[in-house]
Amino acid sequence: MVETTIAFAGSGLDRADHVRSDPEQLAGLMNWRARLLKLDGIDPVIADDGGLAWGTLADADPTAELVFLGLSEDGRGCFAEVNPGLIGSVAPPNPRLWQAMSMLPGAELATYGGARSLVDWHARHRFCAKCGSPTTLAKGGWQRNCTNEACKAEHYPRVDPVTIMLVECDGELLLGRQPRFPPKRYSALAGFVEPGESIEEAVAREVFEEAGVKARDVIYVASQPWPFPSSLMIGCCAVADDKTIVIDKTELDDARWFTRAEVEQAMSGDESGAFIAPPPFAVAHHLLKWWLQR
Amino acid sequence: MVETTIAFAGSGLDRADHVRSDPEQLAGLMNWRARLLKLDGIDPVIADDGGLAWGTLADADPTAELVFLGLSEDGRGCFAEVNPGLIGSVAPPNPRLWQAMSMLPGAELATYGGARSLVDWHARHRFCAKCGSPTTLAKGGWQRNCTNEACKAEHYPRVDPVTIMLVECDGELLLGRQPRFPPKRYSALAGFVEPGESIEEAVAREVFEEAGVKARDVIYVASQPWPFPSSLMIGCCAVADDKTIVIDKTELDDARWFTRAEVEQAMSGDESGAFIAPPPFAVAHHLLKWWLQR
Repeated sequence: MVETTIAFAGSGLDRADHVRSDPEQLAGLMNWRARLLKLDGIDPVIADDGGLAWGTLADADPTAELVFLGLSEDGRGCFAEVNPGLIGSVAPPNPRLWQAMSMLPGAELATYGGARSLVDWHARHRFCAKCGSPTTLAKGGWQRNCTNEACKAEHYPRVDPVTIMLVECDGELLLGRQPRFPPKRYSALAGFVEPGESIEEAVAREVFEEAGVKARDVIYVASQPWPFPSSLMIGCCAVADDKTIVIDKTELDDARWFTRAEVEQAMSGDESGAFIAPPPFAVAHHLLKWWLQR
Repeated sequence: MVETTIAFAGSGLDRADHVRSDPEQLAGLMNWRARLLKLDGIDPVIADDGGLAWGTLADADPTAELVFLGLSEDGRGCFAEVNPGLIGSVAPPNPRLWQAMSMLPGAELATYGGARSLVDWHARHRFCAKCGSPTTLAKGGWQRNCTNEACKAEHYPRVDPVTIMLVECDGELLLGRQPRFPPKRYSALAGFVEPGESIEEAVAREVFEEAGVKARDVIYVASQPWPFPSSLMIGCCAVADDKTIVIDKTELDDARWFTRAEVEQAMSGDESGAFIAPPPFAVAHHLLKWWLQR
């Protein structure tokens, strides 16, 4: 288990699943005490105390759908709005977002991340994938229902499992860089789990696809919700017997083996070494920390 | 790591990701040597040798979409068809399906499971969730594209991460039964991972929601693709300090603590004891086996 806190996990809200399917309880929570998460588009608004800014339901666009995030510690309903302006046009993460998020305490970052994934999902799922009819929000935003009486399909917020993995051979670690990375940044390889494969199979497939390296003996290390838009990062470590790398240039700019000393230098924050480590937000950062500590 | 084979994992097909995005290679594979997975609706057809029955592309409905499953060991393209008869009406698993699947060797069961998830996804995702326009198959069936020029959203096969967990307290195990289970069957509690939570948080939340038990120290044990329709089962084990159970009757018929002797008896196949164990297909079976062995 990783000792340090994983970013985007550890929200203080109680998801209160039983409330979602009880329209009466849900309506009862939508009172003057309820809190509305303030959003700038889909980005967080930072309050004067450095935490998330909250308003009341009176601040919501009257036409906006409201999603129930959960109960605060003092029992108040917490909500976020699917602002009509977001529909079909959620902006991707930008440097200002990363800066705002870096100011938030861990539990608040987790609350924001969960809200972001959920609001984003509603903004991009207005129609029924089965029949093409419009859908409406249900169960406090944890479901959308098709409005076509002949279809009535139910749709649920999506969570996409992604494997992200260290690969070790002779005490060295395989890391790669994607074309969009800043200069010198290397991180763990990663890829979506596909239908019909286990986590262990997905790890081995991705490492072979991206770097031509055969990985075995996959172990699980840590997981992280990653709200861009809704991944579940599943952090693993595997072993390889052969260091020969064949890079898939459509996926990676480069992939290399790094020594323990090089990983230590990068993780100490020293950017003058062989590479620059992934930021503390990323589960890859925690995987590297775990690897150095074990 | 679990010693025994996990059902639905271990397909012998090479997913050959690079082929999917190369229309020329893909077209080249759709030749007379290509294999078409025979399906009865969405259920498998068993060949005389006890494996999956395969035909050629000439057997496909000329109007059907074809999905590329991967390459066989002898380099032939393997495909499955999204039969127009399936669209919008995939039948749920039935006793005949379980019987057919129990006849298949492990690798073939995995190939079938992956194909089933993929074909099912295509049958239920004919329209763009973002704008409601029709979508078309792309990348050998590993993507669907919106046909609306103003939208052009890309959609990917869905994989839903589900946590499934043993909970231990004083050497006893917490197991539950869902209303749809056969008499005396008890199994591991389980639930979908939601946006904004880690695997460990999802485990603790589900155990508390369903049984009112507080779980800590979650460890990962094993994973399994579960094609009904497209779950990724993430098998875990956690620890509890208090055996008091408060059952959520909307989710569970019952939940109980079982002794090691009771688990041993059930896992030996003896149905006269305290409960009947989950079948070998289920990852819960492997979790129980792992727990007895460790």
